[in-house]
Amino acid sequence: MRRKRLYEGKAKVLFEGPEPGTLVQYFKDDATAFNAEKRGTITGKGVLNNRISEFIMTRLNEVGIPTHFVRRLNMREQLVREVEIVPLEVVVRNVAAGQFAKRFKVDEGTPLPRAIVEYYYKSDELGDPLVTEEHITAFGWAAIQDLDEMVQMALRVNDYLSGLFRGCGLRLVDFKLEFGRLWEDEQMRLVLADEISPDSCRLWDVETGERMDKDRFRRDLGGVEEAYQEVARRLGVLPEAGPVDLKGPKSVQ
Amino acid sequence: MRRKRLYEGKAKVLFEGPEPGTLVQYFKDDATAFNAEKRGTITGKGVLNNRISEFIMTRLNEVGIPTHFVRRLNMREQLVREVEIVPLEVVVRNVAAGQFAKRFKVDEGTPLPRAIVEYYYKSDELGDPLVTEEHITAFGWAAIQDLDEMVQMALRVNDYLSGLFRGCGLRLVDFKLEFGRLWEDEQMRLVLADEISPDSCRLWDVETGERMDKDRFRRDLGGVEEAYQEVARRLGVLPEAGPVDLKGPKSVQ
Ligand SMILES: Nc1ncnc2c1ncn2[C@@H]1O[C@H](COP(=O)(O)OP(=O)(O)OP(=O)(O)O)[C@@H](O)[C@H]1O
Ligand SMILES: Nc1ncnc2c1ncn2[C@@H]1O[C@H](COP(=O)(O)OP(=O)(O)OP(=O)(O)O)[C@@H](O)[C@H]1O
Ligand SMILES: [Mg+2]
Ligand SMILES: [Mg+2]
Repeated sequence: MRRKRLYEGKAKVLFEGPEPGTLVQYFKDDATAFNAEKRGTITGKGVLNNRISEFIMTRLNEVGIPTHFVRRLNMREQLVREVEIVPLEVVVRNVAAGQFAKRFKVDEGTPLPRAIVEYYYKSDELGDPLVTEEHITAFGWAAIQDLDEMVQMALRVNDYLSGLFRGCGLRLVDFKLEFGRLWEDEQMRLVLADEISPDSCRLWDVETGERMDKDRFRRDLGGVEEAYQEVARRLGVLPEAGPVDLKGPKSVQ
Repeated sequence: MRRKRLYEGKAKVLFEGPEPGTLVQYFKDDATAFNAEKRGTITGKGVLNNRISEFIMTRLNEVGIPTHFVRRLNMREQLVREVEIVPLEVVVRNVAAGQFAKRFKVDEGTPLPRAIVEYYYKSDELGDPLVTEEHITAFGWAAIQDLDEMVQMALRVNDYLSGLFRGCGLRLVDFKLEFGRLWEDEQMRLVLADEISPDSCRLWDVETGERMDKDRFRRDLGGVEEAYQEVARRLGVLPEAGPVDLKGPKSVQ
């Protein structure tokens, strides 16, 4: 039985789920950076991000932060609740890095005076530009109450994940969240959606300062696969499967 | 030169610090439970709690939660800022345990619908009774604004520490905080004080459910020293020193 493919993104494919209101998220090994100018493959990334995102979303659900995650289905797929994605990337930064360090001409690694929350408008065409609350509310992408709620949730996620990663020797430098709207009993609820993984977080080893995230791919630092595996290992979610399973089927059903 | 001993409590001794506005907190191996009806010694506890509390307070300072901690001085002592202790124990609970499970007749281990914050009035004579906001504001122990600030901080501590301990395979069931008032530029600031350690946290192993905290002493479960050492080891703060140093001088200077 062929499932309906609803959307193919740069890192994941969305299929119709088994029940109404659900989707299947399939994690690919494809990697892109700099608005898809750089493209490549990180062998095993899909398998690892599926597990890592499962682990993190489950922990967040446990501490009362609602997410779209339902359950992992297999090596590369997870069942999630279908949401209406808020067209924003909500970025939380603890330490200056990446384009933030460039924009403000501060050295990468400079700790910020407090956690800084930024919004980027999700638009490949526009290159995901930085936007302000003024832009967001004027264009109707989110109401001010929704933004307040997303910031509250994003800061809780930051506290919990900063602790979680610190507990396994990693520094949470910054990360990106996506939120979605769910309707239940005629009420709108905001939940975390998409994925949380080394694709969406900057993680630096506490001892060596080594980058354990997608920056290894962005900057051609080598050891990309190994970094993702090490993050999974430290979180205790490395699948027992060997390299054959890690590579998985090259073609998506 | 003999330092002035300001206060001897059940687990710690406070000495005058080297500079005005500072204190030295000396960690003893003494343990008490059930309002000091049960007494004993946990060999090495003082050394381990000194390190564990240093580690946790440092991490909390890093994520912007202010504490009294300045620096560790030696195996059993740390320099802290002198504060006026708010006479409350602020308890945060994620899972029913201890007297909470008894009071509400729920099984220990039952997850709570959300994190619950409680206040206990610090009074050995009264046996640290549970109190409400009404009691606290009527007796002037804290203003309602102070309580709000303490709850906000306590919930942030809960998020961060839940993550930190989960990252090393421990479940943060509940914990107790003490807050103190500091005056700076004629302004009052609330900061975390006292200690955060297996004396003040319930920590259960994620895999086995084993208790890794003072409940081993309270309930005569054995392996008390080992549990404290294992928590320190998982946090990466086990002092390299051998058993001789762990035991330390029996008499406090
Ligand atoms: N629960 C969900 N319901 C609906 N859509 C979702 C859900 N979770 C994530 N999405 C969306 O699914 C897509 C996942 O694919 P992928 O991450 O590969 O996209 P992408 O190439 O990064 O493109 P985009 O810019 O849209 O994120 C994203 O568009 C994401 O916003
Ligand atoms: N920075 C600080 N400044 C002043 N007092 C502090 C500070 N940090 C902790 N304290 C107090 O120092 C004492 C520490 O000793 P200990 O924990 O052994 O006391 P205790 O026997 O538990 O008695 P208590 O009921 O007073 O807590 C506590 O009374 C605590 O409130
Ligand atoms: Mg995406
Ligand atoms: Mg005490």
